[in-house]
Amino acid sequence: MNLTDIHCPGDLNSLRENELEALAAALRERIIQTVAENGGHLSSNLGAVELTMALLRAFHPPEDQILFDVGHQCYAYKLLTGREADFHTLRQTGGLSGFPNRDESECDLFTTGHASNAISLAVGLQRARALAGQPGHTVAVLGDGALTGGMCYEALNDAGSSNTPVIVILNDNGMSISGNVGAMSRYLTTMRLSKGWLGAKKAVSRALRRAPLGGEVLYRFFERSKDHIRNIFVNDTFFSSLGFRYLGPIDGHNVSAMERVFRRAALLNEPVLIHVVTQKGHGYTPAENSPDVFHGVSPFYVESGVVKEQQAPEFGKTAAQALIEAEQTRGDICVITAAMKDGTGFSAFDRACPGRLFDVGIAEEHAVSLAAGLARGGQRAVCAIYDTFLQRAYDQMLMDVCLQRLPVIFLLDRAGLSGPDGASHHGIFGLSYLLTMPGMRIACPVNEGQLRRMLADALSADAPTAICYPRKIPQHPLLAAADISGGYAALTEGEDAVLLCAGAIAEEGVRAAAILQAAGKSVQVAAVTQLRPLDPGLWQAVQGRPWMTLEENIRSGGFGEMLTAAAVREGVQPPLACYALPDSFPAHGERGALLKAAGLDAEGLADDILRRLKGEHT
Amino acid sequence: MNLTDIHCPGDLNSLRENELEALAAALRERIIQTVAENGGHLSSNLGAVELTMALLRAFHPPEDQILFDVGHQCYAYKLLTGREADFHTLRQTGGLSGFPNRDESECDLFTTGHASNAISLAVGLQRARALAGQPGHTVAVLGDGALTGGMCYEALNDAGSSNTPVIVILNDNGMSISGNVGAMSRYLTTMRLSKGWLGAKKAVSRALRRAPLGGEVLYRFFERSKDHIRNIFVNDTFFSSLGFRYLGPIDGHNVSAMERVFRRAALLNEPVLIHVVTQKGHGYTPAENSPDVFHGVSPFYVESGVVKEQQAPEFGKTAAQALIEAEQTRGDICVITAAMKDGTGFSAFDRACPGRLFDVGIAEEHAVSLAAGLARGGQRAVCAIYDTFLQRAYDQMLMDVCLQRLPVIFLLDRAGLSGPDGASHHGIFGLSYLLTMPGMRIACPVNEGQLRRMLADALSADAPTAICYPRKIPQHPLLAAADISGGYAALTEGEDAVLLCAGAIAEEGVRAAAILQAAGKSVQVAAVTQLRPLDPGLWQAVQGRPWMTLEENIRSGGFGEMLTAAAVREGVQPPLACYALPDSFPAHGERGALLKAAGLDAEGLADDILRRLKGEHT
Repeated sequence: MNLTDIHCPGDLNSLRENELEALAAALRERIIQTVAENGGHLSSNLGAVELTMALLRAFHPPEDQILFDVGHQCYAYKLLTGREADFHTLRQTGGLSGFPNRDESECDLFTTGHASNAISLAVGLQRARALAGQPGHTVAVLGDGALTGGMCYEALNDAGSSNTPVIVILNDNGMSISGNVGAMSRYLTTMRLSKGWLGAKKAVSRALRRAPLGGEVLYRFFERSKDHIRNIFVNDTFFSSLGFRYLGPIDGHNVSAMERVFRRAALLNEPVLIHVVTQKGHGYTPAENSPDVFHGVSPFYVESGVVKEQQAPEFGKTAAQALIEAEQTRGDICVITAAMKDGTGFSAFDRACPGRLFDVGIAEEHAVSLAAGLARGGQRAVCAIYDTFLQRAYDQMLMDVCLQRLPVIFLLDRAGLSGPDGASHHGIFGLSYLLTMPGMRIACPVNEGQLRRMLADALSADAPTAICYPRKIPQHPLLAAADISGGYAALTEGEDAVLLCAGAIAEEGVRAAAILQAAGKSVQVAAVTQLRPLDPGLWQAVQGRPWMTLEENIRSGGFGEMLTAAAVREGVQPPLACYALPDSFPAHGERGALLKAAGLDAEGLADDILRRLKGEHT
Repeated sequence: MNLTDIHCPGDLNSLRENELEALAAALRERIIQTVAENGGHLSSNLGAVELTMALLRAFHPPEDQILFDVGHQCYAYKLLTGREADFHTLRQTGGLSGFPNRDESECDLFTTGHASNAISLAVGLQRARALAGQPGHTVAVLGDGALTGGMCYEALNDAGSSNTPVIVILNDNGMSISGNVGAMSRYLTTMRLSKGWLGAKKAVSRALRRAPLGGEVLYRFFERSKDHIRNIFVNDTFFSSLGFRYLGPIDGHNVSAMERVFRRAALLNEPVLIHVVTQKGHGYTPAENSPDVFHGVSPFYVESGVVKEQQAPEFGKTAAQALIEAEQTRGDICVITAAMKDGTGFSAFDRACPGRLFDVGIAEEHAVSLAAGLARGGQRAVCAIYDTFLQRAYDQMLMDVCLQRLPVIFLLDRAGLSGPDGASHHGIFGLSYLLTMPGMRIACPVNEGQLRRMLADALSADAPTAICYPRKIPQHPLLAAADISGGYAALTEGEDAVLLCAGAIAEEGVRAAAILQAAGKSVQVAAVTQLRPLDPGLWQAVQGRPWMTLEENIRSGGFGEMLTAAAVREGVQPPLACYALPDSFPAHGERGALLKAAGLDAEGLADDILRRLKGEHT
């Protein structure tokens, strides 16, 4: 069985049982090889191979519409919907995206990346079809982690009551990114254990054997059972309360079993939720054993599963360490994360300060209001959430934190261009949306020492503070050595102009200054590390000299526009240029390439500054 | 029984059964009289009188913490927690807020207004208490409408799994603001009908008699039953799936019955949801008969229930009418609202275009992604949501609409200062957050004709459009007569300066110009009605003349800052001043008074412009 034999999804339907197995193996091999080379999401994609095959045998995109929630489990789908030849470019600059992307294929309806929205989109698509009198099915595929997000429930509530015939497939691998949380997770476990898991796969057998109340007996009973369809059409209570017919649980590594249920669901013409149980990392031992490590992974050696790259120092880990130390003397610090305990570096805090980290799952809205409640109750609450995902809690930050003047600390990790994860994962709106929040203090560190000082300051503040940082700590010696006590500091000296940089992007600034030096222009590069309140000394630094701003954020409402407006108010001459990302959604790619495309790399900056200083721009 | 006899909540505990009834009557009378005079929320407050009394007999704030979700049902609570003497100032400038307000009383923990966040806040408060080893209970009171919001579910999921002992009281009056929606609503109705409603109140008896499957029989059975506690400790399935103990349903107009259950819940030390059934408008016949009309109501005559004020023309109604007409020729328009079908004026669309309006309940996130799905499916989707509530869907607007370049139309009603509803209801962040969204076209009409043209334009655009308007159409003849075809238009002529106004606030601008005219300064007032894309002709209008901007939005990231930055980029001299609301949360009050406080009323503007033109500002 060769992947190149599958030219379109329709080719799947002619395969025999043994060919299906061979195809699954070929898909796995290709996924493992490509992710080992390019990095990417491995565990979830290995888990979804047979599920994707069954989907494409039962449903036929683009006539049928298949949506992957979040979307990082779409690799097999890409391979089977005409993108096999380009798959080696996965996540590379100009190559295939690691997420569904509407510009890549008519089989991808949305460019995705954030969680819990697929049912809503599916309800909309299905209603549009009904209004237009078009046939076809709409299928939303969700991980169990995504089900922690409240908007799933909003969509189930709506679809269930209106009898909108969407098909929701719950790909339950018993964990979201790092261990599942919440009552829903327990509930699904109960369903798995009580309703008859019939596939007797390794992961499930383990779960059953570990389960209380006779799990071992259950396991053996199910092992012996031959009826793969029995017990499937049992209504559960939770989803049926919401008007959905529940089917499952089904073995998510048995293509034929899934295909039968999918076809049956398609005939029902009512809202259906199909509970499919898969194993994360299935078929690759290192990923089966450590699904977290291989959730999103850098390039690795296939044989050993060892990651090639050295781990760079991360701001998140510094923040966690600083807060562990602070908590040991204060005794009042709580950390809230949204399914990103590992990614944010805060697993260490959880270990060191038991009972003081709350991982609420993919539920940023609740995370922020929970933090507000903790802060109102006298705790120092810290929300460690990726910049891009905190967008989900814009209203809660405004209403439950800022309006109440509560000293919640927001750590916006992965600020700036995320690189290979692409459009939905860049943290490029953060400065703009934070600046719209009255009373929100905003800081952007350039080195570890400064982040520690910022945290100490935020812990004693009586107002909310947002600290925005990229994953990796810049390694340029001028940034590492900077001892910044106020809200800004010069990193280089220069007479011809001043370049004010918002936080860590100052690294490109100092590199640009070196290029300019060689071209005979001396530019002072300053890191502005406190965007609100602004250090009033700033105005003196730029007074009477041409000055520019630099940020890794969109232009609208960002650092440069804020400073421009402030300068005009202060009677200071406005900047010569504001270097920022354009108001758009940059694609995935290597961060350096993305910066270059926006003219924000050192060479691009030096070039533009030089021309402006020569008066070549108007 | 006199309200002045209740000095603190503790005084409630000494009352006998007959005194409780007298107190309830006195509370109702006071609420009706005050709302008749000042306007406000009537139906929900009349429904919550006995519930509030029972709450304050069983729990003792500030030691116990009581949170009202949304908060517009807090009037009896205010009267019973030391604010009786000031109650006549309700919703007036400088008076008591119509919502809980942390600056008013230590019994109000949060300044509220948006929905579905109270459980999250309660979980935070309860955990803070546990961490600090403090005793006491935390109670979140929710309407059944608020339960449509997904973040409730996020919080239930978290509290249920962690066994955080919050007490959630579901005040179920069978409707949110205008008729309840969703599967949850049906589910609660089932619970009411099947689990034994024992109070035999009018509303419930009606519901039972109307119910299918022997409602009349059930009703008579429950009528005869004497055991008010029987059937209460029955576990339901939905909430117990989430780890909550369900108690109910309980007669929400029987103080003693509720008090007993509340006390029992307090002893359980586990997450509890208590289902209380009340009648909206209870005790005031006009409100019982038309609870929608009296949800949020202008001053009215108590005897007749007739509203005093003449209804002013509303932008929302114009939008609905224009879309009805467009749909009759197009056949592809869908409208999505979030529990605001009446408030946005779109009930008319629902009647005229059956099956094309989707009211999803208080679920703005789902509303926006549903619209994205409809748009992707070829429909023209229109989201009619209040400016302030659309904040909830910031991420969905970015990710599911703008990133996909879908031509969804957003109608941001109640843009600008909301007036008496206060801090949480002002639409003063809209321009700022919309301007951060790549590709979002932004328009602000000044009259009906222009709104119609904007809608026609948006319906043929291939990008998302946001149209922001206040409730009432400005009545100034210069605005009403303006025939604006481009993105801006001069409303007055003048040589000394130009005042660029974002949309309807131009009314204050032209009034200021009249004052300035009398003072010898002629100012051209222009309405900028298209904020993105900007009409390039704008720059010619301000070139070489002092110019200012005016908006009813916060300063940061708003119209003025956007124009300032754009002017600097275009090489146009920057504005002399940007008139905007300060970066803060204005309190409630009469809109005119709030504008005046910010210096944005005609007199304030004229005064400041005059001084600036004389060079008195630097």
